[in-house]
Amino acid sequence: MTGFKQVSTQKGLLVIPGPIEIADDVLYANAHPSMAHTSPEFIPVFGDCIRMIREVLYTKDAQPFLISGSGTLGWDQVASNLVEPGENALVLNTGYFGDSFADCLEVYGAKVDSLRAKVGGVVPMDEIESALKSKRYKIVTVTHVDTSTAVLSDIKSIAAVVKKASPETLIILDGVCSVASELIKMDEWGLDVIMTASQKGLGTPPGLSVLVASNRAIQTFENRIAPVSSYYASWKKWLPIMKAYEQGTAAYFATPPVNLIYAFNASLMTITKSSEVSLEERFKLHEEASQRVKSAAVELGLKQVPDPENAANGMTALYFPEGYTASDILPRLSAKGVIVAGGLHKDIKDRYFRIGHMGISVVQQSRGDIDKVIDSLRDSLKEAQADKWQ
Amino acid sequence: MTGFKQVSTQKGLLVIPGPIEIADDVLYANAHPSMAHTSPEFIPVFGDCIRMIREVLYTKDAQPFLISGSGTLGWDQVASNLVEPGENALVLNTGYFGDSFADCLEVYGAKVDSLRAKVGGVVPMDEIESALKSKRYKIVTVTHVDTSTAVLSDIKSIAAVVKKASPETLIILDGVCSVASELIKMDEWGLDVIMTASQKGLGTPPGLSVLVASNRAIQTFENRIAPVSSYYASWKKWLPIMKAYEQGTAAYFATPPVNLIYAFNASLMTITKSSEVSLEERFKLHEEASQRVKSAAVELGLKQVPDPENAANGMTALYFPEGYTASDILPRLSAKGVIVAGGLHKDIKDRYFRIGHMGISVVQQSRGDIDKVIDSLRDSLKEAQADKWQ
Repeated sequence: MTGFKQVSTQKGLLVIPGPIEIADDVLYANAHPSMAHTSPEFIPVFGDCIRMIREVLYTKDAQPFLISGSGTLGWDQVASNLVEPGENALVLNTGYFGDSFADCLEVYGAKVDSLRAKVGGVVPMDEIESALKSKRYKIVTVTHVDTSTAVLSDIKSIAAVVKKASPETLIILDGVCSVASELIKMDEWGLDVIMTASQKGLGTPPGLSVLVASNRAIQTFENRIAPVSSYYASWKKWLPIMKAYEQGTAAYFATPPVNLIYAFNASLMTITKSSEVSLEERFKLHEEASQRVKSAAVELGLKQVPDPENAANGMTALYFPEGYTASDILPRLSAKGVIVAGGLHKDIKDRYFRIGHMGISVVQQSRGDIDKVIDSLRDSLKEAQADKWQ
Repeated sequence: MTGFKQVSTQKGLLVIPGPIEIADDVLYANAHPSMAHTSPEFIPVFGDCIRMIREVLYTKDAQPFLISGSGTLGWDQVASNLVEPGENALVLNTGYFGDSFADCLEVYGAKVDSLRAKVGGVVPMDEIESALKSKRYKIVTVTHVDTSTAVLSDIKSIAAVVKKASPETLIILDGVCSVASELIKMDEWGLDVIMTASQKGLGTPPGLSVLVASNRAIQTFENRIAPVSSYYASWKKWLPIMKAYEQGTAAYFATPPVNLIYAFNASLMTITKSSEVSLEERFKLHEEASQRVKSAAVELGLKQVPDPENAANGMTALYFPEGYTASDILPRLSAKGVIVAGGLHKDIKDRYFRIGHMGISVVQQSRGDIDKVIDSLRDSLKEAQADKWQ
């Protein structure tokens, strides 16, 4: 009941697509003795987080917002600060999270059109192009990796299409399941908002909404006519706070999650300043780990949910073999100390499972996490087959 | 830069009115190894938090919402779930946080009337009564302890007045700076919403919005005609999640702050289940510590911001002596390792300072925190006076 001591002994290897395994120094930082959110010790820790998240996204001067909340809060920020009631939004839907983003946009008054990919696929470029030419869209949203399907959208190419077909449309990337595990070049590709959360590629416990807005997005916000339609997610409230902390002074709108900011700082230090694994190498290691898991799946006769050419590098979604269900496989994996996630997409919910391979499970290769996942999956399938043949 | 090791050595005794000093077992729980938010180990930890927060508020079956966010998010929950656009809200304003609550309500379309107390005072009961009789108000909001003034509102008596003058009006208590440091009997006093945050009397790091809604409030929400006007703060999204976790199953809307829930659980265990200090004794200890600080202030010739009959038990706000400013006193306190907060209320910002006395600083008497605060304050004043006389 008290949590820590009792439960930690029951823990296995956490390889769901977030939260992920957390490095010890990040966990220690999350246990930092209580500090005032306005203290001279804390202010630069917050400021450094703002500076470092820019590095992760290859942006020179876009504006980060670090706010206590889950990744979901990023949708509210986009919907209530950038879209005015009655304006059009185009949602590229590659799974569950596209539905939710559309739902959020509608709550704040946007008129949403969704282009739906088939399960496992992406939205064809010509469909995106003709939609953008048919109507004036204030924003287009792309789920970089839809955690429900493991589909990776080619945001670089999509952004190029948007810029050609409708240059004034803001490009919004839902990077909850991609930031720090998939390469994103914010400035070079011309992205306007990247929103994510702390608990996936960024290797920090959950509880921080992380959003970075381009200068163009901030200008759009500043030029809006209708008042911002949320309070807690309002950039009008948060922009002066983020600017103050970056400049080295405290300002108050709502108490920041001080301990989690220390933890985020520790993880960002490793991601951006490590002498062992550079940011470029980090992305390469994610690709390699992903290839290993996906190759093993092929060997084991398991079919991926996403078309292989659109598969994420930070996670893998696999159909159960014909005739098998979650209860045949997942408890066996769990018994071997490997915690994966079940299905989430409503059309195929009971037919597949999901493995996350992000952060230290990928980058700290000496941990052997990927081997353990592959070996345990192989053994679990064998056991399940033996059980059927009895 | 990495935070933990470097900064922890610089830390003093944190006695601002939140975040407060955190017990070691709570900090350890915040460093819990990463767990799936859907895991069988985590679900009861979340469920127990829901059950225990009811105990803290003396309510049998009101509905808690534990959501990743700061205390501010509680205002969005009230404004977007309970008030429909165009409906009237009455805000009893005893400082900074009354202004902000009114601001939040207006963002979501409420028509707000504010009854403003003079600085340090409370709103007279007859004013509340006549306002409630003059117009139909959907909600009345009360800041239990306004952190900017240390004014404690008599919520028990206010609730009785509201029930008599306008029984259908929902009674909303902003308990950010009062829950677990001031006695609140939710059911007996007939309160409809109590909203708070994790980092004050509840003794947990910041990052959790804690709100408890009466059955009547939930019914009002369920009967509303206009759609809920926020997404992340929508009870439509969160109610099924809270019910699922309480009943022992996982459900997903947004990833909960898993580590912080472990920490919250650890602190709630101490608050509600301790064999050493009962909940009743906890409130008495806050009163005693408060009396000690306030008596010492009188001896030192310092005048309180609140009228003494309306002064909070979890914090003290004191004017600087005539002729002295923050820079005469606060750096001296800081040099002695005592971290207090400056002024916040715009009318008197530079003329006063604030001391928090909540949680372990009050309950774990062997720590000697209150002695240290009083002694350091006495010495700092003496030094400041000596300096002036030179």
